[in-house]
Amino acid sequence: MTTINRAWTVSAQQDVQYSVETTFDILDPANPTLVDGEHGSRRLIVTDTTVNDLYGEKIRAYAAANLSEYKILVLPHGETNKRWSAVETVLEAIETFKLDRRREPVIAIGGGVLTDIVGFACSIYRRNTPFVRVPTTLIGIVDASVGVKTGVNFQTGKNKIGTYFAASRNLLDTSFLSSLDQRHVSNGLAEILKIALVKDNELFALLEEHGAASLAGRFQQHTEAQQQIIDKAITGMLEELEPNLWEQTLERLVDYGHTFSPTVEMTALPELLHGEAVCLDMALTTAISVHRGLVTTEEAGRIFNVMRTLGLPVTHPSMSADILVAALIDTTRHRNGLQRLPLPTGIGAATFVNDLTPGDIEAALNILTGAMNRDLERSAA
Amino acid sequence: MTTINRAWTVSAQQDVQYSVETTFDILDPANPTLVDGEHGSRRLIVTDTTVNDLYGEKIRAYAAANLSEYKILVLPHGETNKRWSAVETVLEAIETFKLDRRREPVIAIGGGVLTDIVGFACSIYRRNTPFVRVPTTLIGIVDASVGVKTGVNFQTGKNKIGTYFAASRNLLDTSFLSSLDQRHVSNGLAEILKIALVKDNELFALLEEHGAASLAGRFQQHTEAQQQIIDKAITGMLEELEPNLWEQTLERLVDYGHTFSPTVEMTALPELLHGEAVCLDMALTTAISVHRGLVTTEEAGRIFNVMRTLGLPVTHPSMSADILVAALIDTTRHRNGLQRLPLPTGIGAATFVNDLTPGDIEAALNILTGAMNRDLERSAA
Ligand SMILES: NC(=O)c1ccc[n+]([C@@H]2O[C@H](COP(=O)([O-])OP(=O)(O)OC[C@H]3O[C@@H](n4cnc5c(N)ncnc54)[C@H](O)[C@@H]3O)[C@@H](O)[C@H]2O)c1
Ligand SMILES: NC(=O)c1ccc[n+]([C@@H]2O[C@H](COP(=O)([O-])OP(=O)(O)OC[C@H]3O[C@@H](n4cnc5c(N)ncnc54)[C@H](O)[C@@H]3O)[C@@H](O)[C@H]2O)c1
Repeated sequence: MTTINRAWTVSAQQDVQYSVETTFDILDPANPTLVDGEHGSRRLIVTDTTVNDLYGEKIRAYAAANLSEYKILVLPHGETNKRWSAVETVLEAIETFKLDRRREPVIAIGGGVLTDIVGFACSIYRRNTPFVRVPTTLIGIVDASVGVKTGVNFQTGKNKIGTYFAASRNLLDTSFLSSLDQRHVSNGLAEILKIALVKDNELFALLEEHGAASLAGRFQQHTEAQQQIIDKAITGMLEELEPNLWEQTLERLVDYGHTFSPTVEMTALPELLHGEAVCLDMALTTAISVHRGLVTTEEAGRIFNVMRTLGLPVTHPSMSADILVAALIDTTRHRNGLQRLPLPTGIGAATFVNDLTPGDIEAALNILTGAMNRDLERSAA
Repeated sequence: MTTINRAWTVSAQQDVQYSVETTFDILDPANPTLVDGEHGSRRLIVTDTTVNDLYGEKIRAYAAANLSEYKILVLPHGETNKRWSAVETVLEAIETFKLDRRREPVIAIGGGVLTDIVGFACSIYRRNTPFVRVPTTLIGIVDASVGVKTGVNFQTGKNKIGTYFAASRNLLDTSFLSSLDQRHVSNGLAEILKIALVKDNELFALLEEHGAASLAGRFQQHTEAQQQIIDKAITGMLEELEPNLWEQTLERLVDYGHTFSPTVEMTALPELLHGEAVCLDMALTTAISVHRGLVTTEEAGRIFNVMRTLGLPVTHPSMSADILVAALIDTTRHRNGLQRLPLPTGIGAATFVNDLTPGDIEAALNILTGAMNRDLERSAA
């Protein structure tokens, strides 16, 4: 008997390429963008109940004018419906529609919940079924539809199951924001502010000057400033995502605002939207930076001010030292044992630290309370 | 209003690396291979009911000797249990075990059904949870555990949902085959024969000479010939898989035997095992090659002979011209409109054709019937 063990090492590289494109009036029947210029082809379109109520007729008119055959699948809207059963519904629709995967990409039109569900389904159907994403919320436009993450919630875990899978095209049309309620616009602005704080002080200045009007007008004025805000947010996000698409690097600037927020969001559920929890995290870490001398009091004042202008919270009852310390421990576990906490250094830059203490958190909470009190006094005066 | 559209193109490369290693006595408590030499760590181990009946005690003894903490999850065995609910069971176990994804790979011990289920679950849990594969069937050793495909059946579709996801390590121990019934050894030999026919005439010669004994002895003699058969099958398979891990190229030598077999397998269900259907496909395409002058009658005789020696069928009632023509149409659709049919040219090489006609199929069926009749005459004489 010979017992020579053999070993093979397999190495391969997968090339991934996708586009993110801004466009106007994507549902105008004369606009060929949505069907890649392929007039007369077949498409499965997936959307959610809210978007269907608002845009269902336009979608149908577009499909009738441009497609030889189509099916519109409407999923129940909302985060609580972001689960496997929704993925299964999409899989069944793909199966029934008998789509030709090479020629007929699935079209997903909706917010981050909808596009995450459809992306997950497409990624696993025959291990790869192309899809096109059309975000209809600001979170979708500047965040969910620029990267490659898909997924749904599983048991108590948010986005616990999913894949890395790129939509072949991401078609961003801000006109959908006209129907979005202001709180959801603020929600998206939190992610834009994140990019500004960690890497783009020009974007911060734009938000300082034009944030309030963009929020009030839901980005419908299409001013150059409003376009720049969106463009710079996406450019900044993509600069960070592209070299780390599969999240192998654990020190990520885009994780700014996402250290304490998962726990805060879950604790305050369903009171806080994701972007609101992210903003609370950014306010806290700004205060930590003040405590550590990385951000001046004056800079912090400007930051808190922009947060309020954007309709976002700076403090919240769930932000107790206990909860925040627990949150840090949990995040550290997910960052492979190191805190890797992004902290702003001034406005538009950040550094990573691994030595945060409960004392830092207490001090930051005091700074936040002080800032709030000064603010109350000011508005009382 | 300015309406300048912007477009970003994102390009990235994902590096994938994994190992395929042969090993002996992997369940010997003194063998550190299974736990990567990390004595005293934690592991979630998943297996199926049959493997648990046969090896459960050994697995438990190994775990008790080598791990500080472990859980053994036992899934119901068999192809009919290869569905989403099994994936969900694995996800729940991962969640409950609270494993540290960076340090504690899930261990899957079983046949292709089990490792496909566990691989799928690991690929989607937090979008990436490492796992180690230990195949216990011959199909697992030479096929399911050398590539990167995971998945389960969905509705009527075999492996309709799944992912491309590499096990970090694939640990191949042929001693598991000692308990495998012979029909399942034959089943794996069909995939070995496939590699021999399309690219390795030395492997074919080995099967001709040592196939019968390997089957009868279930590869337990560990002769040099038996090891070479396994080694060459894996080497040949990996040469084809490595440059095409995500199946972007549609002309694949490893698809040999997989043009007509999916339909034949489904038509004859549950009578035929996968490898048996593959062998019927290879016999048919060998006959097509004879009809087209690509394989001599003498070569075909040797091929049919080896098939019989390996306990595999050459003809079957479900192989009617009608079914085979329908099968070809279906496969052509999945190969993006071209047949891309691998046909043997001699023994150990193949070519792709796109112009097969129903006439070719009829002629091939006649050749097969003739060969069978001559064979019957010979055995009657
Ligand atoms: N994949 C990623 O990288 C990524 C990034 C950020 C967020 N997300 C996910 O996205 C989700 C949050 O995004 P979201 O806020 O877009 O969620 P959402 O899809 O739930 O949209 C919010 C609400 O607005 C409604 N809506 C959508 N478009 C509308 C429109 N044009 N007018 C009026 N109402 C409209 C929706 O029906 C929903 O009720 C979370 O589940 C989060 O996990 C994913
Ligand atoms: N992922 C891939 O690339 C790939 C490649 C080939 C096949 N497959 C999949 O693998 C499956 C077929 O593989 P399979 O034949 O290993 O299936 P299997 O896992 O069902 O194993 C066959 C039977 O043998 C039993 N068994 C397993 N190990 C045993 C042992 N050592 N002794 C005795 N009995 C044992 C199993 O419990 C099962 O009943 C199919 O579902 C197929 O789709 C996947």
